Amino acid sequence: MTKRPLITALALSLGVMAGSAAADELMERANAIFEPVPQTPPVIDGNELTPAKVTLGKMLFFEPRLSASHLISCNTCHNVGLGGDDELAVSIGHGWQKGPRNAPTVFNAVFNAAQFWDGRAEDLAEQAKGPVQAGVEMSSSPDRVVTTLKSMPEYIELFEESFPGQDDPVTFDNMAVAIEAYEATLITPDAPFDRYLRGDASALNETEKEGLALFMDRGCTACHSGVNVGGQSYFPFGLVTRPGGDILPEGDKGRFAVTETASDEYVFRASPLRNIELTAPYFHSGAIWSLEEAVSVMGTSQLGTELNDDEVKSIVAFLKTLTGEMPEVRYPQLPPSTSKTPRPVDMVL
Amino acid sequence: MTKRPLITALALSLGVMAGSAAADELMERANAIFEPVPQTPPVIDGNELTPAKVTLGKMLFFEPRLSASHLISCNTCHNVGLGGDDELAVSIGHGWQKGPRNAPTVFNAVFNAAQFWDGRAEDLAEQAKGPVQAGVEMSSSPDRVVTTLKSMPEYIELFEESFPGQDDPVTFDNMAVAIEAYEATLITPDAPFDRYLRGDASALNETEKEGLALFMDRGCTACHSGVNVGGQSYFPFGLVTRPGGDILPEGDKGRFAVTETASDEYVFRASPLRNIELTAPYFHSGAIWSLEEAVSVMGTSQLGTELNDDEVKSIVAFLKTLTGEMPEVRYPQLPPSTSKTPRPVDMVL
Repeated sequence: MTKRPLITALALSLGVMAGSAAADELMERANAIFEPVPQTPPVIDGNELTPAKVTLGKMLFFEPRLSASHLISCNTCHNVGLGGDDELAVSIGHGWQKGPRNAPTVFNAVFNAAQFWDGRAEDLAEQAKGPVQAGVEMSSSPDRVVTTLKSMPEYIELFEESFPGQDDPVTFDNMAVAIEAYEATLITPDAPFDRYLRGDASALNETEKEGLALFMDRGCTACHSGVNVGGQSYFPFGLVTRPGGDILPEGDKGRFAVTETASDEYVFRASPLRNIELTAPYFHSGAIWSLEEAVSVMGTSQLGTELNDDEVKSIVAFLKTLTGEMPEVRYPQLPPSTSKTPRPVDMVL
Repeated sequence: MTKRPLITALALSLGVMAGSAAADELMERANAIFEPVPQTPPVIDGNELTPAKVTLGKMLFFEPRLSASHLISCNTCHNVGLGGDDELAVSIGHGWQKGPRNAPTVFNAVFNAAQFWDGRAEDLAEQAKGPVQAGVEMSSSPDRVVTTLKSMPEYIELFEESFPGQDDPVTFDNMAVAIEAYEATLITPDAPFDRYLRGDASALNETEKEGLALFMDRGCTACHSGVNVGGQSYFPFGLVTRPGGDILPEGDKGRFAVTETASDEYVFRASPLRNIELTAPYFHSGAIWSLEEAVSVMGTSQLGTELNDDEVKSIVAFLKTLTGEMPEVRYPQLPPSTSKTPRPVDMVL
C-alpha cells in the first residue's frame, strides 16, 4: 500500500466517524463556504420568469436562424445534452472559425456573478448578445435578428405575450432578456453534494469527504465557493507559478481586456465547478482534458502545492459529487421561415 | 372578383356540398390514393423497436461525437425543431463544406420506399451510415465511431441492452440499426388531411378540398401518393420540360449515379410531401424557397401545365393540410467523454 500523507489519513479518520461530531464539523464547515443549488430558478431583478417568456427564450436558445448561416444556435455550443457546453477545446463557429476560449456551461450560469471568462457581461441577458454578433460565432447583427424574428408571426405573438404593454416588443434586447429567462431555468439541483449540504451525511462516501476536506484545507475554496463552487470573482491564473503557454496562451490576457488595468493581466473568473465532470476540456484555453490533470495544475499554479496522486483522486471524487440532476428539456418546435425571413448567409465576411 | 377557371368553380361547388355524395366522392378518391400517417410507429422487419434500442438510437441521433469534429450530429441537419431538416439549400458539414443536395426531412422518412434523393439506401439503417462517413458531412469512420462509443461505459451498457445475446454489440451496423429504430418513432400523425382521410369532411376547408381535387386531377398523384404523398418511386425531374440549371444542376444526374442506366439521368425519388410547408427550400437542389413557386415549377416541368395563381394557391392550401403533430422529443443526456474517447478532429483532410 502506498504511503498516505497525514492530511489524507486525517480526512479518512474523519470519514470513519460519519454521523459523529467530526463529520458534522465537516458538514458545518462546508455549509459556511458553499450553498446548495436551489430546486427552483432564482428570482432575477427586472426579468420575471413568466411561462410565455421562458417558452420564447427556449425557442430562441434552440433557434439556428439567430445565426447568419442558420446553422448555429445557442445550443450548438451550450448543448443541453452534453452538460451545457460543447466538449471542445474552443468552439467552432461561423465559417468553421474557432473562438478564442472554451465555451462555459450554461447550466447554473445564472448563479455566476458575471458572464464570460473575463466577466465582461454582467448578466445572462448581456451575455446572450455577444455570440449572436461575434463574427467567429453566429455572425449575425441586431438588425438581422429583429428582421428574422419579425418575419415569423409566431414569434411576434410570443414577444407580445412575453413583453406585454410594449409598443414594439420584438427587439434585440428583448431577445436577450427572454434567453436569460430560459437559461435561468437550466439549473441542476440535487447533486450528492447538495444533499450533503442539506444534512444527509451519507450522500458523500469516505473518499468524497476526504476530497471535500482537502478542497477546503488546501485553499481551493479561496476561489471556488458559493452555490456554483466558483464563478463569483476574478483571480490571476498562475498566482504562484505561471503554467506554460499551452495552458495559458500569452495572447489572451483575460480580464485585462475588460479593465485595462495592469493587475488584471491573466486574470480570469474562477471557474464554476458544478457538473465539472461533464464539461471537459478544462480552463479558458480548453487545453486540459483530464479532471485529474486540471486539479493538479491548479495545485501548482494557484496554491504552490504538488498534490499527490491520492489527494488528486480524492479531490476529483469530491468534484464528481457536484453533478446534479440535468434539466428536462423538451425540444421546442420553431416556426417555419416566411418569404420575409432573411436567407441564410454562410460566407465569411 | 377575379375570374375563376372552371375547375376551381367545380371544386368549390363540390366543397359547398360537404357531407354530400360529391364530398364523399372526393374523400373516397383520396382514400384510394393516399393513406393516413399511422398514430404509432410501423413495424420494421428485423428491427424491433424496443425501449432500450429507441433510447439508444435517440442518444446517437443527438450525438455530435459521431462526427470527427464532435460538433455535428444527425440532428444538426435533421433538426427535430425545424420540421426534421435544416432549412438550408444544401447542408453545411465538416469544415463548413457544403453537401451536394438538400437535406430531406427525417420525419416520416420511415415510410419512404428508399432513402436519399437517389434512393441509394434501402432503409434508414443503411442511410444512417452515409452522413457519418461522408467527408463533407460528419467525416468520421466506422472504426472511429466504434472506438468512441466503446470509450463510454453508458453506451456499452445500452448497446448490450439493445442487442441482447450478441458477443460484441457495439458495432457501426448496430449504431445504424438503433438510429433507424429511433427515427421510426419520428412520425407526425393527425394532420388535417389525415383526419379527412379518416372521414372528417370538415377537416379540410373549401380551398383545401379544391387543392386536393386539383392535385389528383392534374396528375400530381402520379408521383406523389401513399402515406408520405411521395417518397415511393423514381421519376425524371423535367419529364416534360427540363427546368434551368439553377433548379436542376447539370452536374447532379440523380439516380444515374446509383444504377448507371442512361434512362436514370436526372431521375430522383419523388419528394415525400408530408409537412412540406416546414421544409423549405425545395427540390434536391434546394433552389426554390417558396412553396407556390415549387408547385408552379412542378406544373411546367412534370405535367406540362401552366398552373394559374388560383390553382397554385389551392394546391398550396391543400399541401399545408399535410402538416401533422410534431413528435415530442425530450433532449437526451449524453455520457461524458472519457480518457479513451478519441479527441475531436476539426481539420479537413
